Amino acid sequence: MLPLHLQSESHIPLYVQLRDQLRALVHSGELRTGDRIPASRELAMQLGVHRTTVANAYAELESEGLIQGHVGRGTYICGAPARQFTPPPRSNGNGGSVRWETLFADERGEDGLSRLTPEVPRDAIGFVAARPPEEYFPLEEFRTCCNAVLRSDGRKVLQIGSSDGYEPLKSALIDFFRDEGLSVRSEQLLITGGCQQAIDLLCKAFLRPGDAVALENPAYPGALATFGAARIRTLAVAVDTDDAPGGRLGLNIDALESVLMQNRVKFIFATPDFHNPTGTALPLSERRRLLDMAARYQVPVIEDYIYGRLRLRAAATPSLRSLDRTGSVIQIDSVSKIAFPGLRVGWCIGPESVIERLRLVKQATDLHTDQLAQATLAEFIRRGHLARHLVKMKKVYRSRLDAMESALGKFMPEESSWTRPEGGMSVWLSLPAGFDAGELLIHARERGVMYVPGRYFYHQNPQPNTLRLGFASLDEKRITRGIEILGEVVKTEFRKRQRGARSELHSRVALV
Amino acid sequence: MLPLHLQSESHIPLYVQLRDQLRALVHSGELRTGDRIPASRELAMQLGVHRTTVANAYAELESEGLIQGHVGRGTYICGAPARQFTPPPRSNGNGGSVRWETLFADERGEDGLSRLTPEVPRDAIGFVAARPPEEYFPLEEFRTCCNAVLRSDGRKVLQIGSSDGYEPLKSALIDFFRDEGLSVRSEQLLITGGCQQAIDLLCKAFLRPGDAVALENPAYPGALATFGAARIRTLAVAVDTDDAPGGRLGLNIDALESVLMQNRVKFIFATPDFHNPTGTALPLSERRRLLDMAARYQVPVIEDYIYGRLRLRAAATPSLRSLDRTGSVIQIDSVSKIAFPGLRVGWCIGPESVIERLRLVKQATDLHTDQLAQATLAEFIRRGHLARHLVKMKKVYRSRLDAMESALGKFMPEESSWTRPEGGMSVWLSLPAGFDAGELLIHARERGVMYVPGRYFYHQNPQPNTLRLGFASLDEKRITRGIEILGEVVKTEFRKRQRGARSELHSRVALV
Repeated sequence: MLPLHLQSESHIPLYVQLRDQLRALVHSGELRTGDRIPASRELAMQLGVHRTTVANAYAELESEGLIQGHVGRGTYICGAPARQFTPPPRSNGNGGSVRWETLFADERGEDGLSRLTPEVPRDAIGFVAARPPEEYFPLEEFRTCCNAVLRSDGRKVLQIGSSDGYEPLKSALIDFFRDEGLSVRSEQLLITGGCQQAIDLLCKAFLRPGDAVALENPAYPGALATFGAARIRTLAVAVDTDDAPGGRLGLNIDALESVLMQNRVKFIFATPDFHNPTGTALPLSERRRLLDMAARYQVPVIEDYIYGRLRLRAAATPSLRSLDRTGSVIQIDSVSKIAFPGLRVGWCIGPESVIERLRLVKQATDLHTDQLAQATLAEFIRRGHLARHLVKMKKVYRSRLDAMESALGKFMPEESSWTRPEGGMSVWLSLPAGFDAGELLIHARERGVMYVPGRYFYHQNPQPNTLRLGFASLDEKRITRGIEILGEVVKTEFRKRQRGARSELHSRVALV
Repeated sequence: MLPLHLQSESHIPLYVQLRDQLRALVHSGELRTGDRIPASRELAMQLGVHRTTVANAYAELESEGLIQGHVGRGTYICGAPARQFTPPPRSNGNGGSVRWETLFADERGEDGLSRLTPEVPRDAIGFVAARPPEEYFPLEEFRTCCNAVLRSDGRKVLQIGSSDGYEPLKSALIDFFRDEGLSVRSEQLLITGGCQQAIDLLCKAFLRPGDAVALENPAYPGALATFGAARIRTLAVAVDTDDAPGGRLGLNIDALESVLMQNRVKFIFATPDFHNPTGTALPLSERRRLLDMAARYQVPVIEDYIYGRLRLRAAATPSLRSLDRTGSVIQIDSVSKIAFPGLRVGWCIGPESVIERLRLVKQATDLHTDQLAQATLAEFIRRGHLARHLVKMKKVYRSRLDAMESALGKFMPEESSWTRPEGGMSVWLSLPAGFDAGELLIHARERGVMYVPGRYFYHQNPQPNTLRLGFASLDEKRITRGIEILGEVVKTEFRKRQRGARSELHSRVALV
């Protein structure tokens, strides 16, 4: 028996765990050239996993040249060809940060997933991203604003600035909020380097290692990474995705109450509008219950509003911040989803004392946010470009969401289900029970379709059959084609499994 | 006797401590309207402080309307006029961050010191800042570069990017380093949001609460703030400022060794080139000793190179990074001092494994540094503007440093001394023994001259008679005039003290 220990609760796909452990056994010398390893069916039974898991791990090790199959004789170790394969992903000992790094774009491929799976076809249909498509960036308007501020205030922009933000940006945002019906004073507003930094600053200002935060499960992996790095415990609150009539949506408030009753919770972290990854929006009545509960248990709420302005259907629901009467809500927000992710500019709105504390923490973190970005954005907002761009993009996204839902209805097998978001950038798909979206990705990738397996978003009880489909950066045609292919892959695997189940039944019958 | 407790070791000036404690006694009701408080001479004797300390505290309370003097009758409490005065500075319970916030520029005054001292004359001569003067910013070149990158790569610049940095900036920096004789690979380079963020990332990546870092004393207050916020212990290593022939300069390596012998130290943090605040540069032989010691004790070194390129006199000394043969040095750097502080762009150079770890931490902190700033800076470097700007600014600073040294020689009393920096942006002045630079600032400010008292830079054994004079942002005429005034203020106070000592002597003689 090989010393293999797979953790089904882990965020790392089982086949990746198996592949890495087998490779480690070769490198440590426990497995040597010429050693025979078990057939995939045999090892799958030993480990209590699906045979596909073992087959996938073997396939990757074979492509690395580490093992070789001989027809009729079995599978053998062929030695460790030093450094001919990509280094093993650092899947252990690095806490949350490693798991989610694969989710963000980098220069080395369309997205980080390509590190694990380098052979993505060039014209792959990537449902991975949840970000604005750069072909719609209003570049001329942006460049004009940039020139204007450099001409009029260049010296001020390029000189050291305030930790709470560049004053013209704060003013422009306050006016923008006023047009949306929200009154914010300058002392209640801190400019940050995006929502990610807002979470980091909140951790530093108010949380200590071992403190607990109640958080949707699944959740934004960036939040999990930041809390993980600060050694904050995340307490899972289920997210309801059932939008049948009378069904519930978003953070389950009853589940939240039982978490609050049983734990000393420092913050509730919630994304009531178009929650990433599920796309759900919390109904008004549940928002009110959440705020009542927060006040009753005296636990402040961090409201992630990053998708809040991307409502594509139905009437708007007021944000927690605008419903708050007790000063319990800190809202974090950014221009990443509504305009330019490459500009690292976001903000926090909260009670004055909180903002003052965050300002001091911000100062000890990076002095202040880049002023060229702040000043240009201020002008972009002041001239009305942001409001106009938002109107335009909502039409684009609306049409893409329609295309995705119609394709899902047409091509996905009946045994699967998905959320019907009223906004945001992603749909949450549940494959037929027993499927592992991480393993299915291998087959989907071969057909040129990519997505993010649900595992990456869970901090407890991962549901392996779930996955996130981003719809914002693909046009309708590619969305339809991509979902069609994904539907075929799911159906093919579904049939294989049914055949496998039948043939297993036959073998058992034959053995009897 | 009033319950007053002044801490002479504190970073808070004594008169500020006294003022705040007296005010607190009024607010708590322990002192009431009509209560008589001791005469300044009397209270000074009780507390064992100089009479000026009490006089300064009383003067501020009087201007707040909290106390009033009656000729021949003494000083009385006149009640607490609610909110007519500025809120007391939050001098307790906030660790390092509060102390140094007063050092950085903000929109509300020439610098943060104006919060403590709002009545700065409009044409004050501020030796407070250590930053490039904005009137020399090459704005046209910068704007041209900004336009060029937005025209050619706008979509890429404004889309989400890599946590390790925008590739064209990394390339431009690597070429820039090559021209300086230093070979750096992309895997050894991480772009940060400035040096301040580099320190924050290093804390997160490698330090835990209670860990210790050996650090110059005095030191950059921003480093102290970040370490303080992360609850890292800072171990003080003395800085030699004696540059008489045969004298020593910079971090005292013998003192460092005794710190390393007696403590488990995680990092040595050093600024060998034009140390802030003293302006000293560590000689080559001492750099070699530092590196040997780091290797022997296996303690990595963080080299703050932010002033490294601002050598104004004498031949260059190689950086620790370029002398390092054992991979012990992580160099942190930024464009704040050599170009544009308002662009929050800096970098770390270190071993690959360190950079990879920092990249993951950076990702969980703010995803990546703003790309508009990175791209524009890349173009600014690529076109040779940075190198040319640096040559120009070094001439400007050289002439300002000359003016400052010549004025100090001409106007300061013999009992004072100062460092003779070969570069950087500040001179460190030691007033005659017994002076408190924090208290002298009140008089200097009245005459329209500002500086930073040395206390703000010490993390142990503050030397109250020291102060920092930044010379980079003032022209020669204002430098000369400012030092002339400062010299007069020092001489006046010096004479007052001599008279005071004499009259005290007379009183004692009379009493005998």
